[in-house]
Amino acid sequence: MPLATPLDRLDEPSCPTTHGTVAPDRVALAEGVLGATLALRHAGVQRVNLRWRLVGADGAPVHAVLGGISATRHVAAARDGEPDGWWQDQVGPGRVFDIARVRVLSFDWIGRDGTLDAPLDTRDQADALAVLLDHLGIARLASIVGSSYGAMVGLAFAERHPALVERLVAISGADRADPYAAAWRSLQRRVLDLGRDGPEAVALARQFAMLSYRTPEEFAERFDAEPTWDGDRLRCAAQDYLDAAGSRFAAVFSPIAFRRLSESIDRHRIDPARIATPTTVIAIEQDRLVPLDDLRRLARGLGGPARLAVLSSRYGHDAFLKEPAAIARLLRVALDTPLHATRQDSAA
Amino acid sequence: MPLATPLDRLDEPSCPTTHGTVAPDRVALAEGVLGATLALRHAGVQRVNLRWRLVGADGAPVHAVLGGISATRHVAAARDGEPDGWWQDQVGPGRVFDIARVRVLSFDWIGRDGTLDAPLDTRDQADALAVLLDHLGIARLASIVGSSYGAMVGLAFAERHPALVERLVAISGADRADPYAAAWRSLQRRVLDLGRDGPEAVALARQFAMLSYRTPEEFAERFDAEPTWDGDRLRCAAQDYLDAAGSRFAAVFSPIAFRRLSESIDRHRIDPARIATPTTVIAIEQDRLVPLDDLRRLARGLGGPARLAVLSSRYGHDAFLKEPAAIARLLRVALDTPLHATRQDSAA
Repeated sequence: MPLATPLDRLDEPSCPTTHGTVAPDRVALAEGVLGATLALRHAGVQRVNLRWRLVGADGAPVHAVLGGISATRHVAAARDGEPDGWWQDQVGPGRVFDIARVRVLSFDWIGRDGTLDAPLDTRDQADALAVLLDHLGIARLASIVGSSYGAMVGLAFAERHPALVERLVAISGADRADPYAAAWRSLQRRVLDLGRDGPEAVALARQFAMLSYRTPEEFAERFDAEPTWDGDRLRCAAQDYLDAAGSRFAAVFSPIAFRRLSESIDRHRIDPARIATPTTVIAIEQDRLVPLDDLRRLARGLGGPARLAVLSSRYGHDAFLKEPAAIARLLRVALDTPLHATRQDSAA
Repeated sequence: MPLATPLDRLDEPSCPTTHGTVAPDRVALAEGVLGATLALRHAGVQRVNLRWRLVGADGAPVHAVLGGISATRHVAAARDGEPDGWWQDQVGPGRVFDIARVRVLSFDWIGRDGTLDAPLDTRDQADALAVLLDHLGIARLASIVGSSYGAMVGLAFAERHPALVERLVAISGADRADPYAAAWRSLQRRVLDLGRDGPEAVALARQFAMLSYRTPEEFAERFDAEPTWDGDRLRCAAQDYLDAAGSRFAAVFSPIAFRRLSESIDRHRIDPARIATPTTVIAIEQDRLVPLDDLRRLARGLGGPARLAVLSSRYGHDAFLKEPAAIARLLRVALDTPLHATRQDSAA
């Protein structure tokens, strides 16, 4: 789950500033907050705090790893005592991102902390990443590996800043939102409105979102028990699971962040033909949020070398979190194999 | 849509009573309200008003036609000046149910008028139909043709009252609720709770239900436009459609009826092996609410002669309303062809 780790909270720094630390024993780790002025696409010039984290061997190639709307910069623990990150399975010794050989950069989405109540755009996030690279003195990313919202931001980045990235991996994110999924998200935002942004509304909106992240196949295996009565209300077998996840989310996620990042997904439109960066698109056959056909269309439309890999998973959209071994295999191919101008389809 | 026609409202009669009329020019029509005492499975002994309607030639075989939770007894207009019914396409001269040759019986679900705030069961609905047959002097139904909730009730009826029905057609309804669909409905009921049963809550809950009735394929064709701003809120391309349908529904449908009938779907469990009635199961390949696999399992598990027909439709669960020609073809086969003890699969 995107919220597998508690969200660590940084104190607001005076802007602009950065602070960093290095772990002497295992691996270099730097974290910071960059106060930046960005011209947002739909919200004018805004002062934002970019919270970033860079983990790995000094001077090694940098991969930007970007997750879903609830992901943070905390991709993986890099030192003893740190909590696991949201993609811990892919980062560490012997893993896809071996931080003895590469560096992993990530940042908290603009708007992620709920302090910016303004329309956001995936292109804003892409520009924020470009500003961050400039600040950190990173001339070029070895790759952007983005999942879900991160894939959309990666595509927007490749469209807007082609010189700054060598390779793109887009997992379960397309050039634009699927209309049915957009309607689903639109109704989630209505839940926030109906519940006046209260924690119950955030929890319920998240529960609807979770249904779109998972599949009937998984629910049939896990939640086939008969419903029970809870006073005068019928409880379905999945309700405990949904309630726990909804409450956990509502405790740490702002309704403003939910609404603005959700809107940002639905506004997302990039032109695949304008992307020349070698790109691997990874699609999940059972994804109910980002249909396979949408990712086929994306892969076919990309302007540069492109490859489509299709994974079958009962976890649907959440496969990037729940199928670490299969995703790792696809990532290794995506990051290690040269992509030629001819397009290839492969199935996992 | 289930609400294509305005819901006509009957004045409360004193119970028990019936009233009927016959249209002399075209076809016999009888309508009535039967005050009945029923022992409900989970709500004790209750006095209920069964609103029924019987259309067709006097003495002709009777088919019970049952629809979704929002359907009413008004299956089809039978006289000039009456509004169309929810299955008008299947009833009339030259149609599957030619009311010069057969009669069509239907009734409003127990709880449909919102006056009974108690747990309901598909077996209660089946028992209500049996009481109605007794009252009307109908010894045996030629068939029950049920869609969605109506299919579940038809299955419950065949299990409980096998002597009273010759043949069953179950369209998009299974022996039990799919766990994922049950979670989806459970969250819709939470929307009612969050919005304290107000009309906005009913409309929003209905909109989530509508997503489960339709498919991404249909939305991709109809709602591919970019989202727009409505003040400070992003509106997806499908929002006008969803809003209109939600408001229409909330104007005529009680939150109590919504909750109790929705619960009733999730409680529904029958044992297919106990059904000996010859049965045709009609499944829609793209149905997101009642997956094809569930209907395969149902058809395989039925105790009597059974046939499975699979229809491909971008309308998903709503195909029984939106694909009249294809459904009519399948219904003719289901009603006219003898079903042998060997089970058959067919695809449309």
